[in-house]
Amino acid sequence: MLYSKVFGKTVRVPPKEAQMISYKLLHQAGYIRESTAGRYFFLPLGQIVQQKIMKVIKEEMDKAGAQEMVSPVLHPLELWKETNRTKTTGFELMTIKDRRGADFALGGTAEEMFVDVVRKFQISYKDLPFNIYQFSTKFRDELRARGGLLRVREFIMKDAYSFDIDEKEFKKEYKKMERTYTKIFERLGLKTVIVESDNGYIGGEYCHEFVVESGIGETIYLTTEDGSYAAHQEVTKFKKENKNLNETLQPMKEIDAKRGTTMEDGVQLHKKPLWQQIKDVLFVDENNRFILAIIRGDFDVNEIKLKHLSGAIELRHATEEEIKNILHSEPGFISPVGIREIIDKKNILIVVADDSLRTIKNAYGGANKKYRDLLNINIDRDYKPDIEGDIALAKDGYISLNGKKLIEKKGIEVGNIFQLGLHYTTKMKNANFIDCDGKSKPYYMGCYGIGIGRTMATVVEKYNDKYGIIWPESVAPFQVHLIGLDLRDESIRSKVFKVYKVLEENNIEVLFDDREGTNAGEKFSDADLIGIPIRLVISKRTGEKVEYKRRDEEEVKILSAEEVLKFLISN
Amino acid sequence: MLYSKVFGKTVRVPPKEAQMISYKLLHQAGYIRESTAGRYFFLPLGQIVQQKIMKVIKEEMDKAGAQEMVSPVLHPLELWKETNRTKTTGFELMTIKDRRGADFALGGTAEEMFVDVVRKFQISYKDLPFNIYQFSTKFRDELRARGGLLRVREFIMKDAYSFDIDEKEFKKEYKKMERTYTKIFERLGLKTVIVESDNGYIGGEYCHEFVVESGIGETIYLTTEDGSYAAHQEVTKFKKENKNLNETLQPMKEIDAKRGTTMEDGVQLHKKPLWQQIKDVLFVDENNRFILAIIRGDFDVNEIKLKHLSGAIELRHATEEEIKNILHSEPGFISPVGIREIIDKKNILIVVADDSLRTIKNAYGGANKKYRDLLNINIDRDYKPDIEGDIALAKDGYISLNGKKLIEKKGIEVGNIFQLGLHYTTKMKNANFIDCDGKSKPYYMGCYGIGIGRTMATVVEKYNDKYGIIWPESVAPFQVHLIGLDLRDESIRSKVFKVYKVLEENNIEVLFDDREGTNAGEKFSDADLIGIPIRLVISKRTGEKVEYKRRDEEEVKILSAEEVLKFLISN
Repeated sequence: MLYSKVFGKTVRVPPKEAQMISYKLLHQAGYIRESTAGRYFFLPLGQIVQQKIMKVIKEEMDKAGAQEMVSPVLHPLELWKETNRTKTTGFELMTIKDRRGADFALGGTAEEMFVDVVRKFQISYKDLPFNIYQFSTKFRDELRARGGLLRVREFIMKDAYSFDIDEKEFKKEYKKMERTYTKIFERLGLKTVIVESDNGYIGGEYCHEFVVESGIGETIYLTTEDGSYAAHQEVTKFKKENKNLNETLQPMKEIDAKRGTTMEDGVQLHKKPLWQQIKDVLFVDENNRFILAIIRGDFDVNEIKLKHLSGAIELRHATEEEIKNILHSEPGFISPVGIREIIDKKNILIVVADDSLRTIKNAYGGANKKYRDLLNINIDRDYKPDIEGDIALAKDGYISLNGKKLIEKKGIEVGNIFQLGLHYTTKMKNANFIDCDGKSKPYYMGCYGIGIGRTMATVVEKYNDKYGIIWPESVAPFQVHLIGLDLRDESIRSKVFKVYKVLEENNIEVLFDDREGTNAGEKFSDADLIGIPIRLVISKRTGEKVEYKRRDEEEVKILSAEEVLKFLISN
Repeated sequence: MLYSKVFGKTVRVPPKEAQMISYKLLHQAGYIRESTAGRYFFLPLGQIVQQKIMKVIKEEMDKAGAQEMVSPVLHPLELWKETNRTKTTGFELMTIKDRRGADFALGGTAEEMFVDVVRKFQISYKDLPFNIYQFSTKFRDELRARGGLLRVREFIMKDAYSFDIDEKEFKKEYKKMERTYTKIFERLGLKTVIVESDNGYIGGEYCHEFVVESGIGETIYLTTEDGSYAAHQEVTKFKKENKNLNETLQPMKEIDAKRGTTMEDGVQLHKKPLWQQIKDVLFVDENNRFILAIIRGDFDVNEIKLKHLSGAIELRHATEEEIKNILHSEPGFISPVGIREIIDKKNILIVVADDSLRTIKNAYGGANKKYRDLLNINIDRDYKPDIEGDIALAKDGYISLNGKKLIEKKGIEVGNIFQLGLHYTTKMKNANFIDCDGKSKPYYMGCYGIGIGRTMATVVEKYNDKYGIIWPESVAPFQVHLIGLDLRDESIRSKVFKVYKVLEENNIEVLFDDREGTNAGEKFSDADLIGIPIRLVISKRTGEKVEYKRRDEEEVKILSAEEVLKFLISN
């Protein structure tokens, strides 16, 4: 391709307020342009990269037996109502009415659509399993988009949906997709960690994110050094060591406690360890239920775990007024002890205790009154939670269940795989196949996503230097960046055009900077910015030879055209 | 691919109310499924065909120097306001508001978007010309969708936009695209006629449709037998022969005319030829202007031409009440003579005359009163039109301007190319490049579209028989349909799987019907329905040989596996 005619050339200035290196470089090098916040044009060079990423994904998906198809972008809203997802994802789903009054969702993910097309067919166990996928535009009505391709409102996603006869068969497919994803990202130059994570709005029982470690990532995860365990912070399980279980139970007593409202204030006043204090956090859910989360003082509450355990969809912190006027308690002095007796009776209160409260005895904490604390609080004897389980937030340095130290890391989620089980196929009517016993049974499902633009940005985050992008070969828009200098000299001009022609004839992808009137310095810095793996230069100075340099190496070699060609073809 | 695991197998029953053969066959053979009216799933086999069509288009577009990129699906509505297209296309444009209150259009075509991305760059004449295109989902809020892929509400379109320094350069690009499109459709097995047509909502001065002749097409066009002229009926020009211009003008007189309201009633009463009668058709436009179209009695009014000549966007016929109460005329007796004197003065009336009225003298027609007619009406002397020009509808048998007989035909529009000129680049701010004289000038534009699904349906309309589809090789989902029979016989089973493997190893695209428990008859009729070019059968009966049959031929050949392979590879 002749760079003189490429639409979307380099610019020197990054976009205003661009923070991420990937956004700066993809903009400056002419790969993408913002349309409105969170919506991007992929310029010709960017589209080539995007297609190369999709090609790798398609090859590996097809190799794994998956079948590409495509669904409409506008999903009939009734389908989303069948699974009750218009509510749970209301915050980001975009809907539209057509001129005849029919309602549609702009696809954000396509579980319902794929179940819907599958149930249009009479399918028997002989036709199963299958895994069907698409590359299609997805919409997320995010309140805040990050500049660049990492958090956008519109993007191409590869989303796959597997249909199996049962859990056992499904697990094989899930493992296969795990291997396939690892392979895909490897080919794209990305080292991924497979991280247990939360299902969020998708439904189902377990899922994993493919995360590339990166300081600018929004995924916080914990992993053991040997990688034997890795989980999103939201779901990380860890060991809660026993503290003072050998103590004998002391009688509970209420005492004066003129202190501030923080945990540290309690520690100071009572001269007891933080872990012996009870931490009380009061939430309100989407149905106006009060949810009192209690946990050992040295831990924090993990809201995701709390949601799962309590069945809440949305949680917010209770206000001081609610604590005083409805709970009849006191901010900073809330206690599970006797709380059910004092709350305004019209309200629902659920006390959710972290299991860490089983690791301590004779705890201390508030007494639901200002400046009054309780000492020697003991679970079962002094208070009884409605729900007990794990609601603790894992942190760096904690110990995994398999006994190893957890390290907290940040990363970019580039893909995810979900077990869906029977979640959709039991909610949606007739989502059944005929099993070998002649009975009608719901499909056992999984789904598998990769965001293309985000993957592209992640590659740039990992492969760059101060001069620009350094594309891995698998996704580089071209293999060779050919620079012609001194083009007004006819003999050089014809030489470089001849080399260009020979490269093209040999199916070597080449971007040829044929611009006249652009100086050598500009052409070199453009080449560095654009980041194509191999740079060739032909000029007065190179004479009959060609200057060869890899983008990821310093060394410049002077070779004959034949040597270069032989080398490129053999590669 | 193993047919046993393909998602989307054949069904025997066509969709309810399906009329078009392409819809029936694409549904029955497992290529597409309707989601909601006008929105389709492309099933795995259908997606392969769709991709093959896109591949051909991409290859030819790239060969012509065009560059693929992609724009967001949601277009900021402000852009459509800049060109005033929210109004002119309001009838089919879908709009949506995001949660922050920003308005977007769901792209139906992307002129504004492409101008918008281009104006984000500083572009000089040296960077020009370029032609940038995308494959992307387009939305049309059609009131009525036809069953099948010919008129849909959502489809993938290849839309290209060219940017040139001036008209002269643009014309080269337009011609190049004309050649490129002809080549594309040729490769897809479609013979296209290039038909002058109306710009509709796109703007600009001229455009052409690529039409495939077909009885089920919605495009009516007229063409000379030698193809030297072809035009959409909406814009066809033709010769209007002089009739009685050698007559001398007679004095106009008003007479009793107790007749019905049709043209034929006038002919009967006055015993004069139809062509000598004046036909008056009264319309009302979107601004409530009355537009009186007058034309020689043997012609009909072409509303598209009338719109262009009168500047109206929408036209409807006036009601009887409007004719009586506002025009103070009489249905069936309207006349241009004296009409301006009798119309209610608050209203605007524009008299638009077809130039055919210059081919007759001493015409007759109504007198704006019930049962009264005028004889010897003559233009200029008795009435003066506000606008004069061509508003006549061409019909089969008329004579083209180059003196040849016009034949009326129906066809399917599969592509179109538009001159846009400065239409968008002068309406939108800063849509300029820097010319070699240092001055800022608007781009001279063109645009070029192909609907992928419609092209696919058109191929099926042209290539089918009573058993199913007969795909041309360029778009067939696979080259070979391999049928294994008697698969429970282990020796046959291993033989056919071996052939399958060899074919795959040699990169021959093969769909292998490996189903057990499906009989030969079903497998053969499925193969005919699906329509892959070459069918191979291996069974007990074929022994060491392979049965070879082309879908488009009757003859069945018995060949050795080696012969078949050699033949397929050489092809």
